[in-house]
Amino acid sequence: MADKKMVEAITSMEEDFAQWYTDVVKKADLCDYTSVKGCMVFKPAGYAIWELIQKQMDARFKETGVENVYLPMFIPESLLEKEKDHVEGFAPEVAWVTQGGLQPLTEKMCVRPTSETLFCDFYKNEVHSYRDLPKVYNQWCSVVRWEKETRPFLRSREFLWQEGHTIHATAEEAEARTIQMLDVYADFCEQVLAMPVVKGRKTDKEKFAGAEATYTIEALMHDGKALQSGTSHNFGDGFAKAFDIQYTDKDNTLKYPHQTSWGTTTRLIGAIIMVHGDNSGLKLPPLVAPTQVMIIPIRQNADGVLDKAYEIRAELLEKGFRVKVDDSDKSPGWKFAECEMRGVPIRIEIGPKDIENGTAIIARRDNGEKFECAIKDLAAKVEELIPTIQKDMLDAARARRDSQTFEAKTWEEFKKTFDEKSGFVKAMWCENRECEDKIKEELAVTSRCMPFDQEHIADTCVCCGKPAKKMVYWGRAY
Amino acid sequence: MADKKMVEAITSMEEDFAQWYTDVVKKADLCDYTSVKGCMVFKPAGYAIWELIQKQMDARFKETGVENVYLPMFIPESLLEKEKDHVEGFAPEVAWVTQGGLQPLTEKMCVRPTSETLFCDFYKNEVHSYRDLPKVYNQWCSVVRWEKETRPFLRSREFLWQEGHTIHATAEEAEARTIQMLDVYADFCEQVLAMPVVKGRKTDKEKFAGAEATYTIEALMHDGKALQSGTSHNFGDGFAKAFDIQYTDKDNTLKYPHQTSWGTTTRLIGAIIMVHGDNSGLKLPPLVAPTQVMIIPIRQNADGVLDKAYEIRAELLEKGFRVKVDDSDKSPGWKFAECEMRGVPIRIEIGPKDIENGTAIIARRDNGEKFECAIKDLAAKVEELIPTIQKDMLDAARARRDSQTFEAKTWEEFKKTFDEKSGFVKAMWCENRECEDKIKEELAVTSRCMPFDQEHIADTCVCCGKPAKKMVYWGRAY
Repeated sequence: MADKKMVEAITSMEEDFAQWYTDVVKKADLCDYTSVKGCMVFKPAGYAIWELIQKQMDARFKETGVENVYLPMFIPESLLEKEKDHVEGFAPEVAWVTQGGLQPLTEKMCVRPTSETLFCDFYKNEVHSYRDLPKVYNQWCSVVRWEKETRPFLRSREFLWQEGHTIHATAEEAEARTIQMLDVYADFCEQVLAMPVVKGRKTDKEKFAGAEATYTIEALMHDGKALQSGTSHNFGDGFAKAFDIQYTDKDNTLKYPHQTSWGTTTRLIGAIIMVHGDNSGLKLPPLVAPTQVMIIPIRQNADGVLDKAYEIRAELLEKGFRVKVDDSDKSPGWKFAECEMRGVPIRIEIGPKDIENGTAIIARRDNGEKFECAIKDLAAKVEELIPTIQKDMLDAARARRDSQTFEAKTWEEFKKTFDEKSGFVKAMWCENRECEDKIKEELAVTSRCMPFDQEHIADTCVCCGKPAKKMVYWGRAY
Repeated sequence: MADKKMVEAITSMEEDFAQWYTDVVKKADLCDYTSVKGCMVFKPAGYAIWELIQKQMDARFKETGVENVYLPMFIPESLLEKEKDHVEGFAPEVAWVTQGGLQPLTEKMCVRPTSETLFCDFYKNEVHSYRDLPKVYNQWCSVVRWEKETRPFLRSREFLWQEGHTIHATAEEAEARTIQMLDVYADFCEQVLAMPVVKGRKTDKEKFAGAEATYTIEALMHDGKALQSGTSHNFGDGFAKAFDIQYTDKDNTLKYPHQTSWGTTTRLIGAIIMVHGDNSGLKLPPLVAPTQVMIIPIRQNADGVLDKAYEIRAELLEKGFRVKVDDSDKSPGWKFAECEMRGVPIRIEIGPKDIENGTAIIARRDNGEKFECAIKDLAAKVEELIPTIQKDMLDAARARRDSQTFEAKTWEEFKKTFDEKSGFVKAMWCENRECEDKIKEELAVTSRCMPFDQEHIADTCVCCGKPAKKMVYWGRAY
């Protein structure tokens, strides 16, 4: 009964994808709503995924010379206003602090929606000579954007992220760092989250407020909608000029430095859910699974069963895997369903009969495969399975993404594809804002990016028929 | 010249301890002031210490079954007001958000000064049955308290911390967890920060707003002033009653659960500075030193010197140590001074002469010892030195703390000690608030704690002469 009820409680993704998502988030115990409108609680199962993302991404940052810092969460209004495009982009969606203690503030401050202005203010004090450059800093923190509609992990008024902010002597160095960090993100998504992404540049319409160029990684969800999964911005010397940051170069002249910023957020957890999940719940790539192996004893009250389960756990822990034994008083069936719902990559079943035979059952969450394994070989088998599952999940996600990626040469084809299918559509563009606006208005579709890997789909813009300049990934997005 | 200037720039601690502290914080490049009044920037050298604290403390938490979560940074006014003592304690010092986006909020929200109320609101949804208990959660985040006077690391309007919040079926279990976490803090301070602490209970006057009992670890700084370095609170069922959290127990009756909270902050970095530092700057215990070994090449342009330095670095990195080579174009003397200022525990000097002899010089930051070591033995020597320095620093800090801990039997003795000396004074107390108030008023001294290790100093209260009930550590505090 209980097993059935648990499985029944999830809406199938084919029936209602949005409801499926909400059900998984809730049933896999990742987060909860709160009395604070638009904000969420990261519960242990959800926060543990974020910790694994942080740990592995931070290590990759540090390999490229990134140093972590922490800047204040408040931005005085006058500071936010210094860069014109930036304040226009963010002022409408910030939370304002107007009172500190029992006194009204003389100048109101917003809670950071992003920290470019704070880093500029900081760098203005730190950077005087070419010897002070570059600075390659990052911070892990939360930011606030006063969104009207919110969804767990995808859009909330407060979310967790990392924001890198760098400052360089030359434009070339800044551009190189912008691309380098985009590459770090793309590799991380593929290798750690088993999630393929398209790398490219945003159009002017879609770029970050105050940036010269914004680069993005775009992933495709199970429902064919795109998710912007990380961005990297090159600011040129625009912020430096707005904040009057100058340095003395080797030739003894004053120059403006060049800046970048780049960020990823807890929205990556939403991406994991929507790229890998199925109608039994979450599917976690082993590298970000808080529990990689769940051992479920069968007839656990029988002599020696729990002892054997703990023994196997000890052996796997010893090897460095994240392992648990579910020794609760629920039925094995209920435990299986829960283990699937929570996305645990490997399940090991062991009962009295198995012990007699010196074997156990291994079940893979990613493809449902189930097979027998000698108890003495379990550790070696798990060691082999972890990278295998990681790779198979990436391959499966890539195949699905490719099957949901289309091409269109003409407006009719373009419209028909978006009417009938869901996914990325590759099509040519003349680089005029008008066409982008029209596509958004008529099809509710946005340009996701101008991919680095340009292809020649047609000679003409899919919208206006004039000569095309760029191939663009178009899609409906979260 | 440059070496001399760098050293001269620090005020000696005997001359002006507060200025010495500010100088070290600045010269060791730990943090900086900002345009945001009362808030600070954690620079890479400062933040890296916090990361090492986090990593090692978090591992100790998890060993005791703690799970990490993340709750919103905002608290609606009505939520903050639910527990009477708590709101009285915190309302006067919070920052209020009154506007979100372009609209005024219908209910103002404060930025969390601490999250008891949010956790209660969360637990009210999570805890229904004895099966849901205990929950042992923690979060790493920043909090805001609108302080008037601020000092780097010790008191700022925003600071970083961890706050654990647990909920239990019984009063006994809550009390046991409160003490367990105080023990985790005390062990961490001694073993990781090389900082001895006194464990004890706060008096009612000094306890946390809303707590039944507050326990504390108190450390003594170089100047003889006390620093409260971590606290653990038992709330009994007071918050559960205020928030109407109830669970159905095994006997099928509704009961109120019992709660605890416990926290440590970036003030621990201030403690490290003031417990270990000297007139050459910072002294970092190896376990929290971002750089444990600095290799300084002598005549680095001579053939093979840099290569040998990099070779030694590679060998030490291989062993898992945090090592750097200072290959900048500064003079060796300047590098030595900088390395001392930043508190790097071990310095290795290597020049052409040394290489010829197959040796290098090792210098310890903690006690100034300098000795020759065969290059081939360097890794083994460093491996031996790291725990040795860690232990010697704790021993030195404990000896200093003990030499600054006094006893007083009478008011005259008590007053005389605080007039002439600086440190902890152990003295008896009658447990009346009046005496505590009088001591604070006349001597600017507060009760630091009623230590777990009670001693019998005298029969009577050091203030009123009536029968004594408790031995108390008294001191002037940060």
